[in-house]
Amino acid sequence: MSQVEANLKRLGIILPGVPTPVAAYVPYVMADHLVFVSGQLPFQDGQLRFIGKIPTTLSMENGQEAAKLALINALAVLHSACAGAWSKVDSVVRLGVFVQCGDDFTQQSTVANGASNLLLEIFGPAGRHARAAVGVNALPLGAAVEVELVARLK
Amino acid sequence: MSQVEANLKRLGIILPGVPTPVAAYVPYVMADHLVFVSGQLPFQDGQLRFIGKIPTTLSMENGQEAAKLALINALAVLHSACAGAWSKVDSVVRLGVFVQCGDDFTQQSTVANGASNLLLEIFGPAGRHARAAVGVNALPLGAAVEVELVARLK
Amino acid sequence: MSQVEANLKRLGIILPGVPTPVAAYVPYVMADHLVFVSGQLPFQDGQLRFIGKIPTTLSMENGQEAAKLALINALAVLHSACAGAWSKVDSVVRLGVFVQCGDDFTQQSTVANGASNLLLEIFGPAGRHARAAVGVNALPLGAAVEVELVARLK
Repeated sequence: MSQVEANLKRLGIILPGVPTPVAAYVPYVMADHLVFVSGQLPFQDGQLRFIGKIPTTLSMENGQEAAKLALINALAVLHSACAGAWSKVDSVVRLGVFVQCGDDFTQQSTVANGASNLLLEIFGPAGRHARAAVGVNALPLGAAVEVELVARLK
Repeated sequence: MSQVEANLKRLGIILPGVPTPVAAYVPYVMADHLVFVSGQLPFQDGQLRFIGKIPTTLSMENGQEAAKLALINALAVLHSACAGAWSKVDSVVRLGVFVQCGDDFTQQSTVANGASNLLLEIFGPAGRHARAAVGVNALPLGAAVEVELVARLK
Repeated sequence: MSQVEANLKRLGIILPGVPTPVAAYVPYVMADHLVFVSGQLPFQDGQLRFIGKIPTTLSMENGQEAAKLALINALAVLHSACAGAWSKVDSVVRLGVFVQCGDDFTQQSTVANGASNLLLEIFGPAGRHARAAVGVNALPLGAAVEVELVARLK
């Protein structure tokens, strides 16, 4: 078992199946060593778990859970991009985190840490990433968070 | 005539001229095999065609048309990046779609499909792309949609 | 003294220290020739200088200053990514500019020019970049602008 698999198991994370693309876009595209993973929403067991704005409809803790869950969906896609072999992942490169929030909300970084911290726990140093976290007034299906990922494969 | 040119002709799409950069930024930059195309707005014949928010000022259908039109402008830039030779395009990699919308709008993916579906129609399998579609409260010049593209050249 | 250093000196720009990462994410990640710099805020001397929305709390001129200042922080990161040797920078590739603004604001491009023009002044032709500038309703810590950068090293 690879260290990444061991970490996922220790954290009790079971990666979901990669969603069948419902449109012309696909879960990921590879370009040379880079994998571009499409923006992921906080789905769990086929249901969107966190809908609404932070901090009005949802709490900060909800937001962090949403970021974590969206990231787990991105990892499922990354896993399929490396054909199930985590050892092919060289490093995570960039995380884009969009937080659906009220106009006065200023803690997008704290929300995004829900995803960033998990990356570090799972991948160790290879999980350190560049990041842009911003607020937006609306997201697809009303999701609280959308997470986009770029990784480098060996 | 390449397949891409044939598809554009069949779809009745005439690519516009690439706008002269009005600022320090440029329509595209190449980095190794990747072409980064600047965010494009739904311009047609030099006029911004779709201004306002979805679904208040503009309908969903307007939004899809706006996404399609912004993409056509991005393709004009891509065409110039490969010096007019579509055969140099290996694949589309990533589409970023920003939808100007009301705070309760949740159909950004459907709007973005206006661009995604066209990519597939024009490029076939090479047009399949990773995508992030999000809502925003405001866009340059009041445009309904902004589309950013990364492609890989051979 | 390199041309870039000379330009920085002429413009009176002193690069700040690179902030210690406060989270699992890091100021930059390299992937082959590309450097991905994390989203930067308009910090100066450890203080966030521009907080609020354009054009309500802050003027257009404030916004341009904020974009410039966020870029200066991104350049400090880029400088550390090339171990202090500006000659290693091949070109700037992409700038992502998020402008915190009111729902009716339409001049995000003008705000972003505060960063774009400075890149050109500092790097000359190598500073020409692809760009996406969008409006958002909220940013981390209430910052007026967030700037994200991708550059290519030789």
